[in-house]
Formats: sequence, C-alpha cells, structure tokens
Amino acid sequence: MTSEFVPGLEGVVAAQTEISEVDGHQGRLIYRGGYLIEELAHLSFEEVAHLLWTGSLPSPQQLSELKTQLAAARSLNDASRAATAALDLGVDPMDALRTGLSAHGAGPGCPKPTLDQAIGLVAAVPTIVAAFRRRQQGKDEVAPRADLDHAANFLWMMTGEEPKPEQARWLEAYLILLADHGLNASTFAARVVASTGADLTSAMVGAVGALKGPAHGGAATAAMKMLNQVGGPEKAEAFVIDVLDKHGRLMGFGHRVYRTYDPRATILRQLVQSANPTFYAVASKVEEVALRELLARHPERPNATNVDYYSAGVLAGAGLPHEYFTCAFAASRIVGWSAHVLEYMAKDGRILRPASQWIGPDPSQRVVAKA
Amino acid sequence: MTSEFVPGLEGVVAAQTEISEVDGHQGRLIYRGGYLIEELAHLSFEEVAHLLWTGSLPSPQQLSELKTQLAAARSLNDASRAATAALDLGVDPMDALRTGLSAHGAGPGCPKPTLDQAIGLVAAVPTIVAAFRRRQQGKDEVAPRADLDHAANFLWMMTGEEPKPEQARWLEAYLILLADHGLNASTFAARVVASTGADLTSAMVGAVGALKGPAHGGAATAAMKMLNQVGGPEKAEAFVIDVLDKHGRLMGFGHRVYRTYDPRATILRQLVQSANPTFYAVASKVEEVALRELLARHPERPNATNVDYYSAGVLAGAGLPHEYFTCAFAASRIVGWSAHVLEYMAKDGRILRPASQWIGPDPSQRVVAKA
Repeated sequence: MTSEFVPGLEGVVAAQTEISEVDGHQGRLIYRGGYLIEELAHLSFEEVAHLLWTGSLPSPQQLSELKTQLAAARSLNDASRAATAALDLGVDPMDALRTGLSAHGAGPGCPKPTLDQAIGLVAAVPTIVAAFRRRQQGKDEVAPRADLDHAANFLWMMTGEEPKPEQARWLEAYLILLADHGLNASTFAARVVASTGADLTSAMVGAVGALKGPAHGGAATAAMKMLNQVGGPEKAEAFVIDVLDKHGRLMGFGHRVYRTYDPRATILRQLVQSANPTFYAVASKVEEVALRELLARHPERPNATNVDYYSAGVLAGAGLPHEYFTCAFAASRIVGWSAHVLEYMAKDGRILRPASQWIGPDPSQRVVAKA
Repeated sequence: MTSEFVPGLEGVVAAQTEISEVDGHQGRLIYRGGYLIEELAHLSFEEVAHLLWTGSLPSPQQLSELKTQLAAARSLNDASRAATAALDLGVDPMDALRTGLSAHGAGPGCPKPTLDQAIGLVAAVPTIVAAFRRRQQGKDEVAPRADLDHAANFLWMMTGEEPKPEQARWLEAYLILLADHGLNASTFAARVVASTGADLTSAMVGAVGALKGPAHGGAATAAMKMLNQVGGPEKAEAFVIDVLDKHGRLMGFGHRVYRTYDPRATILRQLVQSANPTFYAVASKVEEVALRELLARHPERPNATNVDYYSAGVLAGAGLPHEYFTCAFAASRIVGWSAHVLEYMAKDGRILRPASQWIGPDPSQRVVAKA
C-alpha cells in the first residue's frame, strides 16, 4: 500500500450517511429525508430532532410523546450535579458541560447506543449548562419546567425568567439550523469514539471536546468578540481594512465545504434583523466591507459569510451570554452527533482506524548513528 | 471530487508521525527515535514517556526531573475528587476515569496543549482510577507516595500495600509496551479533537471514551473473561473447538495491522510465565489450539495472537482486577495520546474533517414522492 498522506483528511469519504448533506456547490444543506434546511427552520426543535433520529417528521402523537420524554429527562442525576458543582467558577463552560455530561451519562459496562439514551443526553445538556451559568452568577439553580419546550426551557433555566416567545423562537431556529452538518469534526469525533463499540456518552463527551476548539464551535464567540471591537457601523470600513492590512483574520468568513453563501447564514441574517438590530447594524456593514475586500485581495478564495457570523447575533438576541455560545451549539449539534452514532452502529460499525506514515528513523539507522 | 467511501478509513494515511510506527509485515513496533519496542521494555516508564514526548531518552538529570514533576502532580484537585466521589459505585471504571479526568483538567478558556499539561494529566490518571477502586471496595483512598515510581505508586494506591518489586516491574513493562501504537482509534480520536484547537484535556477525555470500546481497549478484559471460562489447560482443546464450531469469536487473536505475531505479545508472553503461571498454563494451551484451528479453518486470515491476550495475565499478575484492565491501558496510552497531540499541533494542525457521501434522497425526489 502506497497511500499518500491526506492532510486534514480533506476529500476522503469517511462515512455514508443519510443524516445530512452539505452541498457546498449549490449552497444547500439537506437534512434526513431530503428536506432543505429552509423547509425546516420554522418547525419546532423536537420535530427536527425526531426527523434526524428516525428519518421522518413526527405525527402529532409522536411529537407529543417525544416532548414528554425530553421534558421528563431534564433533571440531572446527583453525580452530574456534584461534578459541575465542584468545578472552579472560572472554568470554561464547555469544560463544565464535558464533565457534567460525562457524569450524567456514566453507568455500568459499555451499553450499545440507543435512541432513548440519545434523548436522555439531549435533554440533560441545557440543564447542565444552565446550572453552571447560575453558579457562575452566584444565583440559585432554576429547575426545568415541563410545560416549556426545549428551547424556551433552556432560556428559562439560564435566566430564571420566562423568555419572550420570539426569544424562544430565535433560539429554537438556531438549534434547528445547527443540529447537523455532514461530517464536521465533532460529528466525526463522535463516530470515531463510537466505532470502537464505546457507549453513547463517551461518544458525546468526545464530541463536546472537539466542538470546543476555536476552529469549530468556538467560532461564533470569536465573531462576537470581533464585532464588539468594531465600535459601530461607521467604523466598520476602517476596522476591516486595518485587520486585513495587518494580515489578521476576520472571524465568520470562509468554510471548508461551502463555495457559496452558507444557507444557514441566510436564515440567521434575516432573523438577526429583529432579534438583534444593534448587532445587525454593525455586522451587516462589516460583512459588506469584508466580502468586498476579501474578494479584491484573494479573488481565488471562496470567502463567503459562514454560519458563525450571524449565529452570534441571534444567540445574543435570544438572551445568551457570549461565553455560552459554544454550549448552545453543543445543545443543538448533540442531536446530529447522536443520530450519526446510531446510524453508524446500524449500518457500518467498522472501527475507524486510518493509517499513519512514519517519518522517524528506521531502527537500523539509529544503531548506525550511535556507533 | 469523486472519492469512494473507505470503510473504517482502512489504509488512508491520516497522519505523518514520528511518535511510533507499527510495521505489521515485519512484526516490528518502533518508538520515537527509531527504538524497537524490545529495546525499551526493560527501561522505566518515565524514561519511555520522556522518549515519546521529546524524541530522546532522558539524561539522568532529566529523568530525575521528570520523576519529580510526575510525583508532584499526582494529587487530584477538589473538582476531580468530587466528580468521581459522586458517581454510583456500579459505573464502569472507565466512566469514572473519563469524568474524573475531565474535572481534573478543567480550566479557563481553551489553552494550547503543552508538555507540562501532558505530564499533569498522565500523573493524575492512576490517582483517579485508584480512588474509584477504593471507593468501590468501601475502603479509604490511599494517598500517592512520592518515593515510588509511576507504576509502583499506581499499585500502592490501588491496594494500599507496597507492591513486590516484580509486580511493579510487570505493570511497568506493560505501561511501556502499550504506551503508543501508531494511529490506533483512541489516538486518532485525540488528534481529531485537538485538530479543532481544543485543549489537551478535551482530547484526552475523548481518547478515554474511544479506548473504552470492546473493539479497542476493552479487549484484554474480554480475553481474561474468556480464559476464565475455559476451566483448565486440559479443557482448552474442547473449549476452542466449541467456540469456533458455533461461529463464536476467540478473544485475543487478529489485528488490523499486524500480519505476524505482535512483538508486544512476545514480550508479554514471556513475562506472564513468571507473573501468572496459572494463567499461562491455560492461555498457552488455548493459544496453541486456537492458532492451529484458526489456520485450518481460515488459512487466508492473519490470525496471530495480539497484545490483549497476554496483557490480561500480566495485569492480573501485577495485582489489578480485570474490571480495571482498560484503565491500566489508558494509564499507559495517555502518554502516546498526548505525544501525538503535541506533534500534531506543532507539525500539521489542520482540522481533521473528512467528507461524507450522501445516501439519502435529493430534495427534488422528496417533493415528487409527496405529490
């Protein structure tokens, strides 16, 4: 075998999937069953989770059952509560989620992943995240409310106030739009972990870790921080040109797969106009200048706006602090992670073990060098 | 791009590495610097860890410094202690390690991986594992002892008794032999997580999860369970034939890469003769029959004995219960995991994001089907 090293595994097909497809050339994101993301954005989070897990949108009865099951699984077990309660208040919220989820899903042996387990972990994520947020603020934990849907309850537990319907809707749309995206790095991490026969919790915890990286889930926070530095729409032009002249990086532009405007960014861009007008005023101006300048300077690169850019404004508009954007991403993507693991175990199940290329010395060379 | 799906990514080169090389055709395992595993098995764990991390064996002073640094980092922080203390006693010890390590390594932001962090996490693994073992037994935690080396201290914390020198040696040899092995699934998981820019703890926690699977780190425990069922060397023949006639699977044979006897199995086979003569009597007889029968029934398959088979006997001889074999594996392989992450961040650093192939319906088909 004389395979060549493929940096980043770019272009290597590591999975056959019917969970989602990123059609980067046509700028389409297709969810399970052949739905375009634009057709799903107005639905409920629970409907889209059902679609990604099972392959079809739920009947009214199925939807009601799923909502009941999710709501019933929101409370944390003692282990998870204790695990996050003992963390220093200064740790990254994603570390709290990683630890709390690991504790919440701990159990005997190494059970085969099931949909019920997936529902249990998806239900627990907002509770873990919100409990840590409340502790950081020196406030009491807010118990989940079974009468609120997934997105609204998340905001309720974070703030202790019932969110406005439109805030819940913005977060819900975000949770739907980000729920799956082909074989991104965290989904791939989940598949690699599960491919050894590991349990679902191990796979989800691995994926949380992968998502934490600034090149993946951390990007919306980075975009928010960048836009906060601009200081108003009228300073957008100077800001962008200064960053590019200094060979700095503009956050929220470019993607490994999309060669067009990210279809999720289109929807989020529209949402953010009502969700966060102040953000939109700056962001749209920075975007205009950035796309113009990036095209002029690097016409060969496909530097369209990506999903992280407008995510930041929508999440902030819904009432989430920017330190928790990546946790919100996890609360969404864990649906896709778990759907991929269930699919992998059902369809393929082969251990994901690529090869490596040795670039160190041969033992014979080493002995000679020593003599 | 018209790449084809590569199940399990078999044969795809996903990394260039100088940490270790599995030469499956010649049956060689080469560690960093060009050392054959046979040249290293008699050294100390700390020497080999230094080699994998830095590329050279330590000077006496470097060795002493590393031992001091490891010993100083053995105590758990409060978060890690609380996280494992709250877990049900019946959870898998690997779940306790996954949770305890996640808590121990939690911190602010997303720091770039460093060697000091690696040393800190490697030092903590035996303490987390032993603390949970003691709790399961209803016994008090045993504080680490700075005057004992890594392997001896591990056994000390597990049992509360100073191990015999030969027991510490058996475990130490095991920890060296298993410390790295090319791009195995857990090491690959660590690289995938780290490739997003995630912190070292996230990468190590992901790798712990991957190692837990029965197709990876769980195999030594499975081999031990199988051998415990045999019931004596005189029953080996009937046992093996019965398993194979019923199309069952013999644990401890075959490997994705080795086409020869695993060089680590050769060393462990020799060790186990003194470490665990009872085990050896059964295991060597089962092996003899198994290799003969596997060759007769599947002459086309390379079904040599793998490392898990004799690992089980060595670990049991050193005094570890079989429920903790996978944790011992983690205590060893975390050296390799962290060395790979440090190498990846230094050399390549590109996000590991392969492609997927869509096997669901196109949106146009879906609409037509509905009409």
